[in-house]
Amino acid sequence: MLTEPASCHVDLAAGTMGGAGGRYQKRLSDLTGLYLDADAHRDLVTRTGDAVVYDVGDFRPSAAAGDMIFGLTRMSPGLVGEEFFLTRGHIHAKADRPEIYYGQAGQGLMQLESPEGETRIVEIGPQTICYVPPFWIHRSINTGEGDFVMMFAYPADAGQDYGIIERSGGMRHRVLRGEGGGWRLAENAAYRPRTPSEVQALMGAAA
Amino acid sequence: MLTEPASCHVDLAAGTMGGAGGRYQKRLSDLTGLYLDADAHRDLVTRTGDAVVYDVGDFRPSAAAGDMIFGLTRMSPGLVGEEFFLTRGHIHAKADRPEIYYGQAGQGLMQLESPEGETRIVEIGPQTICYVPPFWIHRSINTGEGDFVMMFAYPADAGQDYGIIERSGGMRHRVLRGEGGGWRLAENAAYRPRTPSEVQALMGAAA
Repeated sequence: MLTEPASCHVDLAAGTMGGAGGRYQKRLSDLTGLYLDADAHRDLVTRTGDAVVYDVGDFRPSAAAGDMIFGLTRMSPGLVGEEFFLTRGHIHAKADRPEIYYGQAGQGLMQLESPEGETRIVEIGPQTICYVPPFWIHRSINTGEGDFVMMFAYPADAGQDYGIIERSGGMRHRVLRGEGGGWRLAENAAYRPRTPSEVQALMGAAA
Repeated sequence: MLTEPASCHVDLAAGTMGGAGGRYQKRLSDLTGLYLDADAHRDLVTRTGDAVVYDVGDFRPSAAAGDMIFGLTRMSPGLVGEEFFLTRGHIHAKADRPEIYYGQAGQGLMQLESPEGETRIVEIGPQTICYVPPFWIHRSINTGEGDFVMMFAYPADAGQDYGIIERSGGMRHRVLRGEGGGWRLAENAAYRPRTPSEVQALMGAAA
């Protein structure tokens, strides 16, 4: 009846977590439609043999409310045109669930968007813990030269809604390479703000 | 209404977390009664000027069910007689809540005890993630030569019951310095097993 204690070892150099029961990876072709420069994306898929953009290993003791899932994510560095490699991004299916990310290697950022379309950026390097509060859509972006590795943890009943970003034509901003290095934000012209009733439906998940 | 995203930076050398809203520390005198060798404990309190054994910094966004608290704990190395420096230990007030610990520096272990009195030990070094499942009493122990630092995260509504260990006369085992180094377990002669109804009351917290 009791679950046994467990331990998982993180390999920082490889960007992997031993003892992870679940693993998945996303390749460039899995991220079709997310980038502004579709031609650059298509070219890069061909040129790299459809490179892996990120992989995730996690430990899921249960899906019970009150339990927790944790894991490790590793993102490759790269650009599609002027846009940094990114994850699909999600809001939690139970939108009132938070997540924490803990930077382990490399440099990147968390792009967050509220249901009403406000953007926040949290820069993450080694030993930065980022708290993603309830109700924020979030996506990880590798802005560095090497692998960007983060540990993460979230409530086991949170779930993920990956469709929310697609439904609004992407996130409101794109994260592009800065003029003199670093990064900059650009408005996403294809972005369609959520309606008040859509916002209400998301926030109502709190009840 | 929305909570703003936040970031906290971990200083591995200092064993502290920037941006922590809550901080507390425990000194040797706060841990009176936990050690087998009461004379050695008293002497050490005097000799060290009541040294700090561990300190904790945490970030508590809310106490809402489904939210998460995280932080950093730093334990000093040391022995009281043959017994390693340890934390008070606790079970969650909502006993069905888990916790994760992530080793950052030093060497130590998590001592776990089930309501029925079974002991488990998880050794933790840098980059070891320890999953403490629901219903396990747990205590951290520094078995190394230097500071033992761990990041931790748990459900915001978990709470802590620090009295459970006192009510049973301590944990079932003590963790002592090993004969040729390392550590060994010794039965705690003062241990009083929980009764079936006490076990049932703890496990019933799941309902």
